[in-house]
Amino acid sequence: MLSTAIKEKLIQIVGNQNFQDSKASQLVYSFDATPQFQTLPDAIVSPHNTGEISEIVKICNEYKIPIVPRGSGTNLSAGTTPVEGGIVLLFKHMNQILEIDEENLTITTQPGVITLDLMNRVEAKGLFYPPDPSSMKISQIGGNINENSGGLRGLKYGVTRDYVMGLEIVMPNGDIIRTGGKLAKDVAGYDLTRLFVGSEGTLGIITEATLKLLPMPKAKKTILALYEDLDAAAQTVSKIIANRIIPITLEFLDQKTIQAVEDFAKIGLPTDVKAVLLIEQDGEPETVEKDIEKIAELCKQNHAVEVKIAASEEEADALRTARRSALSALARLKPTTILEDATVPRSEIAKMVSAINQIAEKYDVEICTFGHAGDGNLHPTCLTDVRNEEEIERVEKAFEEIFKKAVELGGTITGEHGVGAMKAPYLHLKLGEAGIAAMYGIKQAFDQNNIMNPGKIFTKSTRKRVVVSES
Amino acid sequence: MLSTAIKEKLIQIVGNQNFQDSKASQLVYSFDATPQFQTLPDAIVSPHNTGEISEIVKICNEYKIPIVPRGSGTNLSAGTTPVEGGIVLLFKHMNQILEIDEENLTITTQPGVITLDLMNRVEAKGLFYPPDPSSMKISQIGGNINENSGGLRGLKYGVTRDYVMGLEIVMPNGDIIRTGGKLAKDVAGYDLTRLFVGSEGTLGIITEATLKLLPMPKAKKTILALYEDLDAAAQTVSKIIANRIIPITLEFLDQKTIQAVEDFAKIGLPTDVKAVLLIEQDGEPETVEKDIEKIAELCKQNHAVEVKIAASEEEADALRTARRSALSALARLKPTTILEDATVPRSEIAKMVSAINQIAEKYDVEICTFGHAGDGNLHPTCLTDVRNEEEIERVEKAFEEIFKKAVELGGTITGEHGVGAMKAPYLHLKLGEAGIAAMYGIKQAFDQNNIMNPGKIFTKSTRKRVVVSES
Repeated sequence: MLSTAIKEKLIQIVGNQNFQDSKASQLVYSFDATPQFQTLPDAIVSPHNTGEISEIVKICNEYKIPIVPRGSGTNLSAGTTPVEGGIVLLFKHMNQILEIDEENLTITTQPGVITLDLMNRVEAKGLFYPPDPSSMKISQIGGNINENSGGLRGLKYGVTRDYVMGLEIVMPNGDIIRTGGKLAKDVAGYDLTRLFVGSEGTLGIITEATLKLLPMPKAKKTILALYEDLDAAAQTVSKIIANRIIPITLEFLDQKTIQAVEDFAKIGLPTDVKAVLLIEQDGEPETVEKDIEKIAELCKQNHAVEVKIAASEEEADALRTARRSALSALARLKPTTILEDATVPRSEIAKMVSAINQIAEKYDVEICTFGHAGDGNLHPTCLTDVRNEEEIERVEKAFEEIFKKAVELGGTITGEHGVGAMKAPYLHLKLGEAGIAAMYGIKQAFDQNNIMNPGKIFTKSTRKRVVVSES
Repeated sequence: MLSTAIKEKLIQIVGNQNFQDSKASQLVYSFDATPQFQTLPDAIVSPHNTGEISEIVKICNEYKIPIVPRGSGTNLSAGTTPVEGGIVLLFKHMNQILEIDEENLTITTQPGVITLDLMNRVEAKGLFYPPDPSSMKISQIGGNINENSGGLRGLKYGVTRDYVMGLEIVMPNGDIIRTGGKLAKDVAGYDLTRLFVGSEGTLGIITEATLKLLPMPKAKKTILALYEDLDAAAQTVSKIIANRIIPITLEFLDQKTIQAVEDFAKIGLPTDVKAVLLIEQDGEPETVEKDIEKIAELCKQNHAVEVKIAASEEEADALRTARRSALSALARLKPTTILEDATVPRSEIAKMVSAINQIAEKYDVEICTFGHAGDGNLHPTCLTDVRNEEEIERVEKAFEEIFKKAVELGGTITGEHGVGAMKAPYLHLKLGEAGIAAMYGIKQAFDQNNIMNPGKIFTKSTRKRVVVSES
């Protein structure tokens, strides 16, 4: 609990109405989108600007009070849960787009802007911000940067990291630094910009960002390919790339996911096939036309039982929306849905999907798989019930085996969800102790008092799905 | 000087023929491509593999012996000069391409491979490694990674950093770590991969890299646009981007550079115009055709006095080669050529070029300017004579003013050459003391004994163009 003196100091900075510590507000910010992971903060603070954040950080650093910067809390790794109490920092007053620079093709924004709003604003000018995490309708851009969010367009356009050109950061000692800029090239020292992208709020607080924009592609087309056989779908993915075509999107859904999505979205998806690929290409109209024809041909050559090219943008949009609803659709089926994001090199997709199925069988748990096949980023999703402790134990074991298999295939324990509190016990699988030691060295160098989002990335405790702390 | 005991330990690791400490060999590795910057190493060591490097590093860490990893020494910031003595580490035995993976579109390579050889090897398979530093014919890929090298294609394709997917690194304590992988998405902890790219050998030794490849674009076209007026050329650059066209290359040469290049390359460049833009586009044939037509139109609208589209690939190649020879051409004119790379946002190119000309006049020094206008990365190049101490002092003052101006315009002190020893005294202009402190924190966390390429990035000594140390 915060002392009265500290509470007063914080109120002096942000004003009475921007400091909350009622039980009700503590509960609201005690969890994020991660199932069944709950810990209470001491208070919620909503500063107006970078200067206020710097003052707050200085106080927290002096009194060793944890700070959890939080966007909309859509992350799935318990990355924004206040596991050691302290204050949750909100960006509701720092939600302005500061500039769209059409000459340098950049946007400069505060962290609290909703991702989709940012996309719409740049698209209105014929520009394009590609990273599209599934939560983009509610996620904040600051959260995307802290998590290095991915999305459906990662195959062709990369992830959030590839679009962050410069940052303003409040360091854990309260110092304000600026990294990068509107610069395609900048080698003045270490790349702090990309170090902070994906650092999950553990190294400092991002208070402003300059992002790279692209010209909006002129055309887009969408294909749905249906398969009776998982391997054939995975083969198609490899063949498309081997033919030197990089589609914008190359999504995979297994039968159970298709059934759940169709049940939910009712857009006429076939529910009797074993796998579906949703493929999109964008670019110049002629190129898109050529690529889509070639892709359709490759799907057929690789034993797709049916290939449908979306006839209109409405039809394409319905397919995309259906794909984006996969998690919501699955979440309706059982009380608890655990979505993971083991990722492998693209060539290993078939092996990984069949390993997931074998592991699910071995531990007698229900796992559906969908995800970004083009970039090897799969979302094995377990339908379970957290109240069934015995089953949850089997689920945990199954996921541990899935992570080990992913790393064995040259992959990683998390492609786009982050480590947070949930994946921390598995980090050594990917990095080894020496790799973790190197990262921890950076954490200690920046944040001696461990105030920035403590208990994330480096914690070694075994993961617990139900925690209620009153720290 | 190394003690006999240490010398014997190193010889035991690499063998007699891979340890050199004769005066002659010390002299060979006492400088890099940076003019007039020379310091002697104690020895030159050429290991065969990562294991040997780890053993060498452990000894150096124990006895606090500086290690300077060195590719072909083509850098221009004195980044590979052994300013504190110690050993220079060569990669001549680690010069193999380990794998080209056509399914995942990656190449895995040892650091000692020549950049152009690597490019040719992937192009033979219809693939494309875009970063093309001017020194690519002799530079090593490991050096490119350590320096985050840029090149002419940066505008559309980015820089070396954008292609490094995974690294094997020997840390300053001898630990071997692996970062990233053949993974489009990986958020397992901090982004060590990009932290090491551009860290100039100060954080560890890169012993293997996995790089991203693209499908080879099918077509390419080249335009030369001539201007009587600098501003018109700069305006054209902005207008092309504002028209949502991102060319692969958008190079600028001022009159003095054109004259020197034509004198050197004799390909019939006009020497009576004030500025030239060399513009290239690649992609699908139809798109290239359309873009090039539009670009030619924009050049004319913005007062180009002549616009030539290269009639053949041979003609285009001659133009590219001429541009790449700019430094060599200028270097023939005076005993000393100092090439800098102040970089600004693309929109500020006109202001920066005219500021450079004003500053050159103010200090009565001869500065030619060419560079990558599309990404704001200019190369103001001073033709001088290092034996004329009074002039060199004016040159130094002029460059300091140029760096300050670049930062004032939202730019940086170095776009692609690195900080090394030469730019260290100016780093604070871009980063401020708090930014440098953050970077130095990382350096200290990784390299407590400061053995990795010491005296680079963080040194505060004023720069000296003639140094001969016998440490």
